[in-house]
Amino acid sequence: MSKLRVAVIGAGGRMGSEAVRAVEAADDMELVAALGRGDKLETLTEAGAEVAVELTHPDAVMDNLEFCVRHGVHGVVGTTGFTAERLATLRGRLAEAPGTGVLIAPNFSIGAVLTMRFARQAARFFESAEIVELHHPRKADAPSGTAARTAELVAEARAAAGLGPQPDATSGGLPGARGASVDGVPVHSVRLSGLVAHQEVLFGGDGEILTIRHDSMTRGSFMPGVLLGIRRIGGAPGLTLGLEHFLDLHSQDLDG
Amino acid sequence: MSKLRVAVIGAGGRMGSEAVRAVEAADDMELVAALGRGDKLETLTEAGAEVAVELTHPDAVMDNLEFCVRHGVHGVVGTTGFTAERLATLRGRLAEAPGTGVLIAPNFSIGAVLTMRFARQAARFFESAEIVELHHPRKADAPSGTAARTAELVAEARAAAGLGPQPDATSGGLPGARGASVDGVPVHSVRLSGLVAHQEVLFGGDGEILTIRHDSMTRGSFMPGVLLGIRRIGGAPGLTLGLEHFLDLHSQDLDG
Amino acid sequence: MSKLRVAVIGAGGRMGSEAVRAVEAADDMELVAALGRGDKLETLTEAGAEVAVELTHPDAVMDNLEFCVRHGVHGVVGTTGFTAERLATLRGRLAEAPGTGVLIAPNFSIGAVLTMRFARQAARFFESAEIVELHHPRKADAPSGTAARTAELVAEARAAAGLGPQPDATSGGLPGARGASVDGVPVHSVRLSGLVAHQEVLFGGDGEILTIRHDSMTRGSFMPGVLLGIRRIGGAPGLTLGLEHFLDLHSQDLDG
Amino acid sequence: MSKLRVAVIGAGGRMGSEAVRAVEAADDMELVAALGRGDKLETLTEAGAEVAVELTHPDAVMDNLEFCVRHGVHGVVGTTGFTAERLATLRGRLAEAPGTGVLIAPNFSIGAVLTMRFARQAARFFESAEIVELHHPRKADAPSGTAARTAELVAEARAAAGLGPQPDATSGGLPGARGASVDGVPVHSVRLSGLVAHQEVLFGGDGEILTIRHDSMTRGSFMPGVLLGIRRIGGAPGLTLGLEHFLDLHSQDLDG
Repeated sequence: MSKLRVAVIGAGGRMGSEAVRAVEAADDMELVAALGRGDKLETLTEAGAEVAVELTHPDAVMDNLEFCVRHGVHGVVGTTGFTAERLATLRGRLAEAPGTGVLIAPNFSIGAVLTMRFARQAARFFESAEIVELHHPRKADAPSGTAARTAELVAEARAAAGLGPQPDATSGGLPGARGASVDGVPVHSVRLSGLVAHQEVLFGGDGEILTIRHDSMTRGSFMPGVLLGIRRIGGAPGLTLGLEHFLDLHSQDLDG
Repeated sequence: MSKLRVAVIGAGGRMGSEAVRAVEAADDMELVAALGRGDKLETLTEAGAEVAVELTHPDAVMDNLEFCVRHGVHGVVGTTGFTAERLATLRGRLAEAPGTGVLIAPNFSIGAVLTMRFARQAARFFESAEIVELHHPRKADAPSGTAARTAELVAEARAAAGLGPQPDATSGGLPGARGASVDGVPVHSVRLSGLVAHQEVLFGGDGEILTIRHDSMTRGSFMPGVLLGIRRIGGAPGLTLGLEHFLDLHSQDLDG
Repeated sequence: MSKLRVAVIGAGGRMGSEAVRAVEAADDMELVAALGRGDKLETLTEAGAEVAVELTHPDAVMDNLEFCVRHGVHGVVGTTGFTAERLATLRGRLAEAPGTGVLIAPNFSIGAVLTMRFARQAARFFESAEIVELHHPRKADAPSGTAARTAELVAEARAAAGLGPQPDATSGGLPGARGASVDGVPVHSVRLSGLVAHQEVLFGGDGEILTIRHDSMTRGSFMPGVLLGIRRIGGAPGLTLGLEHFLDLHSQDLDG
Repeated sequence: MSKLRVAVIGAGGRMGSEAVRAVEAADDMELVAALGRGDKLETLTEAGAEVAVELTHPDAVMDNLEFCVRHGVHGVVGTTGFTAERLATLRGRLAEAPGTGVLIAPNFSIGAVLTMRFARQAARFFESAEIVELHHPRKADAPSGTAARTAELVAEARAAAGLGPQPDATSGGLPGARGASVDGVPVHSVRLSGLVAHQEVLFGGDGEILTIRHDSMTRGSFMPGVLLGIRRIGGAPGLTLGLEHFLDLHSQDLDG
């Protein structure tokens, strides 16, 4: 079988260089181009890339994707900064390029995506839900974006199921002890030397606790998701938002 | 709205007495009969029960269910001992009683059911999977039935996804250290005073770990599942095996 | 060997009734009196009690202890509300009753006492320290008294070792995410149905994390500490503050 | 203040190169020599080393230490393979070199040393004790040396306290489920992609669990222990076995 011809845009960055290594190590792929700062986009088409992995910067990503879509190169995008307006523009471009697909994934970690999905599914069955996220102390934001997004999903699922406010008799103590509230779901941010990136979603009901925890220790943990996106985007024309759409979580449940 | 008329068979047992309390506390249900050892099954029909919760013993359950099905009383069953033969017999009876439903659930803990389901869904994305289950030291079997079943589900999902054996370079040490193998998935059983019933499913891939943990502290943790079964069985004629069919995990994913 | 003659004051309360059961179950003790509300203190002396377990109320405890000390009955006290003034008064009474001892223990859980001690010992070796305490949602205060006290001990040990502020680059996010600060040690309070009383002390340094976790599921967890206090107080004249003084943690380290 | 003059023997190895970096980064130390394979030991004395860090191989360590001791250079040793005979030989050499000290540490991770110490201290207060150790799947031995050693310490402490066998009603199931027995303490070994080196010591009693967990993610976690050894060995003539002797855990307990 011929190998999938893959290019990496932003190959000099931390995620990009990791992606270069992952594509080179994949049996079913061939790295045909690795573009760094200043390299011309034409390199992509000259090299015959079928899929481009885009890991650059919000300032550059729209131009890069426009070029890819116009030339029928599928995109797998980890760069952030997509507003509703940008998504609309991109959908317009894709409408004019039938057969071409772009995957934009805010998180390429399959473990993180599964954690969010499971959390959303479990939420309506438990009276209580809280999130503890734990990161290295160099992190600027608290809570983490992933934890805030997970809390939103949990809150949405609770609301959709008609669950009311969480039970909480706290009437005294110290400010901050009960964490930050994201749509009514408390989120606690631990910052500790030695940690990398960890998230724990706790659900509690009468006499039981369900915990979903994800520990991400290296950027390598994003690569299986990137490779999955590369393999699947050719069969998914148009715009796909989120890696979860390529995880086929429904099909395996037929016998469930 | 009129309340659902519920009976409990086996009301004197540990699970049964808990079910009596749970039904009495539910706003949308009325406990119309609580049958203990020696009580006549006719009490059910005289009391106008719509649903019977069956929590007795493998020796008694088939007669009890036959009576229920014949009289159009839906069954929610926590008793164990259902062989393929028994299930076939029961299906035959239900075929003659259209509109009547029976739910047989090996586990009424929603948390345990979700844990198994999430474990099965996650299994194919990770190179490694192991289970640690932790119980009080009075437990006779190791591993627990739930852990063994979870390991089987994980092994099935790995096989279906074409995953090979788990990486493991262990070449020396002490017998037993690597746990029991259930279809190639190592299961470790901790027995500790102070524990109740806990299970941890660990998945590992390049640079990341996903952990799903369920802690069950009281029999009360089974009651939300029993109540859910009572509410849903009227709308599910025939035989339903496993509480997971009433959790509606697909529908909420439409927007996923 | 003759059995130790023990009385329980406050035998009708939740902790008191648990203590009655524990003393009755102990091979080396005899329960000679169980005083409830309204019972006369003279019952103690008439029954020949050698040790009295005091589990009543801040309003009653001083009178009860004064009676005990005056009559040479040792005290093991779980009641709270001891101010510096009260302690001084008690020390005065004990000075006039040589040979009589009183143990006041804010926490009879040996696991909790060990957690605090280990946390204090570990604190100076790690750059970062945070506490996550998790309780049932009916709890009024956040953080818990035990967590706040543990944080104080950790902060003292850090200061004594000359450690500066913990590394933390948090510059944005949501209020409360980083928890409550107790002397510079962040404390996070989770409140979840299904939980009882749990505390996790996390220490982090370059490439490593040390976690000390205590889970307390029942009041039964306090009884080994109460029994230990009863056995040891006869050999410890005067006032002893804290169960840790009876744990003999030094002696076993001679060969360490 | 003049800086401590430090040499590293085995500077080309994984631990050695880490030690070189750590010494260079320490404000109070100067790296005066870094010896690789084939470098002459005389380099040490010519460079005026006061302390030598020995991180080589069991075949080389005795000659290296003999040279150091003869020249009054203190040794901080992470190499393994010390038999009783080797220790006796080394003690003999040190007796002839008063004022010179050698620290042999099987484990330089302060977190691991504290875990073992706390485990030993806690052991006698709990009816049940088990160990779960978790490592990457490339590890050859199961259980890990650290877990086996910890289990031995726990077993010794239990025996010294007169505790009998642990409660365990297991009568059926699968072989290996209950782990390996190290002197009666069950040890379970998990091997999972994505893990590094982790150990959890669980103690259980009536209604409570105490858990001590150590996660070691990088070799960097050994360096604070190596630096501590370098700083302290000059004040500890003779042979010191184990980093715990330099942790001063007693002194801070005076007010405890």
